[in-house]
Amino acid sequence: MAVIVQKFGGTSVGSIERIQNVASRIIEEVENGNDVVVVVSAMGKTTDELVQLAKQISNQPSKREMDMLLSTGEQVSIALLAMALHEKGYQAVSLTGWQAGIKTEDVHGNARIIDIDTSRIYKYLQKGKIVIVAGFQGMTESGEITTLGRGGSDTTAVALAAALRADKCDIYTDVTGVFTTDPRYVKAARKLQEISYDEMLELANLGAGVLHPRAVEFAKNYQVTLEVRSSMEKERGTIVKEDISMEQHLIVRGIAFEDQVTRVTVQGLPKGLQTLPTIFTALANRGINVDIIIQSMTSNEATSVSFSISTEDLHETLQVLQSLQGVKVEYESRLAKVSIVGSGMISNPGVAAQMFQVLADCGIEIKMVSTSEIKISTVVAQEKMVAAVEALHEAFQLDEKTAVNS
Amino acid sequence: MAVIVQKFGGTSVGSIERIQNVASRIIEEVENGNDVVVVVSAMGKTTDELVQLAKQISNQPSKREMDMLLSTGEQVSIALLAMALHEKGYQAVSLTGWQAGIKTEDVHGNARIIDIDTSRIYKYLQKGKIVIVAGFQGMTESGEITTLGRGGSDTTAVALAAALRADKCDIYTDVTGVFTTDPRYVKAARKLQEISYDEMLELANLGAGVLHPRAVEFAKNYQVTLEVRSSMEKERGTIVKEDISMEQHLIVRGIAFEDQVTRVTVQGLPKGLQTLPTIFTALANRGINVDIIIQSMTSNEATSVSFSISTEDLHETLQVLQSLQGVKVEYESRLAKVSIVGSGMISNPGVAAQMFQVLADCGIEIKMVSTSEIKISTVVAQEKMVAAVEALHEAFQLDEKTAVNS
Repeated sequence: MAVIVQKFGGTSVGSIERIQNVASRIIEEVENGNDVVVVVSAMGKTTDELVQLAKQISNQPSKREMDMLLSTGEQVSIALLAMALHEKGYQAVSLTGWQAGIKTEDVHGNARIIDIDTSRIYKYLQKGKIVIVAGFQGMTESGEITTLGRGGSDTTAVALAAALRADKCDIYTDVTGVFTTDPRYVKAARKLQEISYDEMLELANLGAGVLHPRAVEFAKNYQVTLEVRSSMEKERGTIVKEDISMEQHLIVRGIAFEDQVTRVTVQGLPKGLQTLPTIFTALANRGINVDIIIQSMTSNEATSVSFSISTEDLHETLQVLQSLQGVKVEYESRLAKVSIVGSGMISNPGVAAQMFQVLADCGIEIKMVSTSEIKISTVVAQEKMVAAVEALHEAFQLDEKTAVNS
Repeated sequence: MAVIVQKFGGTSVGSIERIQNVASRIIEEVENGNDVVVVVSAMGKTTDELVQLAKQISNQPSKREMDMLLSTGEQVSIALLAMALHEKGYQAVSLTGWQAGIKTEDVHGNARIIDIDTSRIYKYLQKGKIVIVAGFQGMTESGEITTLGRGGSDTTAVALAAALRADKCDIYTDVTGVFTTDPRYVKAARKLQEISYDEMLELANLGAGVLHPRAVEFAKNYQVTLEVRSSMEKERGTIVKEDISMEQHLIVRGIAFEDQVTRVTVQGLPKGLQTLPTIFTALANRGINVDIIIQSMTSNEATSVSFSISTEDLHETLQVLQSLQGVKVEYESRLAKVSIVGSGMISNPGVAAQMFQVLADCGIEIKMVSTSEIKISTVVAQEKMVAAVEALHEAFQLDEKTAVNS
């Protein structure tokens, strides 16, 4: 019998009716003769509500206690989903992260999975039960409850698929697949049939965080084929795998963007090899995610460095930078990042030039640029973000139905 | 250093403000130089809300999955309380039932504690931390999450006090102690300074279930002295212990009552030793609590038996009885049970007669009677319940300030 892992996100289990709908989707795969392991997130806004409760008590609640608190959200979902399956006449059993054997490193709030002891899951599968695992959580060697950070349920699903050598790992979400860009902003956005892991990684923030980057990395490392699909509609979704056969001729596969970006510039840094590591280690230790980094150095002068962060981290970033002596810090908020992504870029020079021309034609000033082999990112004014995406979507022929399903 | 166990019920942690208040009560004992282990229930109506969620999915949800679901309620409380203590500058750590080493039998919904491995709690106490344990829950040998049934947090507290050989076990609740009868119904009700375990057991349903009978039994078996007191007010509460010195001359210590009682009568039972065990085993297997049982048998005739149940169990009781052949089942709902309790009764004949006379003088018909060494229970019409309690409270001199604090 084939083992299938299905993951349902918070929106998919956001109400009793939706939980019952999820039960039906699970039963379809069971009736197809599969062993099914299901990973679920907390219902709807539960996690946010728990965070709000904690914030009423403390501005900086202990990460250990936050894990204790937040891990209850998924535990509620798994119990209710198991009951819904029972009610439909199917055998199901729910398991918390620690019961499912998900072992993590000894870090709270953002732990990585280090191993999965699948014996308990196998025992239940052999008894013919549907196994429902709480996403987003695990346990350390010493019996502490940990969480994997936001998007952790995707990682749980992929890690379980790898550990169980599952035949499929279906990520059910509130969108029907991975799109060329976010359809909520750009009407011309189209669903992709297939996408590679690397492209998916670069597009990770498309479609309201449809798939968490850590989960994609995990899938890539263990060669787990994913399908991103809708929990409400039955159409096929987007397959995420290593080699993709179709659409290879598309230079740009999708356009990613995010708002609430701030650019920080530090001038007058003392020279020396340790300056940059000192800054970015200090930021990393505070959990601040730095995205684009641009350094300019002129001989005889002090160094200057610019980097982009999420605007919500600005306050803490400035605190960290205050501890540096003799430097001048400037920042600009209300920015957005717009990126074009596609593995076809590698063999197509001039893509960056084309991107800059498209933006220039729209009168959009580029404030930062960063490139990788399959992605070119630009930072622009937040109010120009959607216009930039629409122009690029059209210019790189993503509007057209070029060898892609609709 | 003395170890103190404090237990706070759902009302005491029903809001963020109340959790902060509980943190202050804990800190008082810490500042007195004590090692403190705290047991908390789920916040306010959380458990009821979770039960309602489950009922939207299934009329008879799996007990295992109910345990999975309900145990999240206490987990939220312990995390928030730990954060509140951190915020006030104290070291605290929360532990779920399984993390606290609370081992239960392999039964869901109503498991008994079989052992407590206190090593993890001691480890944290030695590090100077306040240890906060989720009440109402434990784990089986095979790693299943269990709950102890309603009132289980009291049992957790007493069991921990016994296992840790604690010097005190304070049960904080929303009343200031144990009363001669429920002050919400009878204005003349008075708070008792002391009460014995046995009297407390018989009075268990006084004052909105101020202390769960299982917890009292546990306390009696392990000779744990309890104090029932208010989490909001600082006055001393009621001490529950084996031998009580004062108030011995009081024949009746308190008057307990409950409404929603139904009397069921089964007529035409076939003769034979197995008839009664069959009925009551079948009821017990369905978790139906039978209270007073009265059997009348006349030679040559079939047996008849009456018993009282909680009205909410009536539907299920009738289902069980339907399976018996050739019997006639009658029932009367809208009844109440009124009991007088006191260890002084043993040596005072005529107490029952006096009780019956008081009720007769009020024109209250007695529908069932049951007696134990320290308790006499009567079943009366529900609408007469409060009148019966008031009349008995006065007749047995509980209104007077006879050698008791006010």
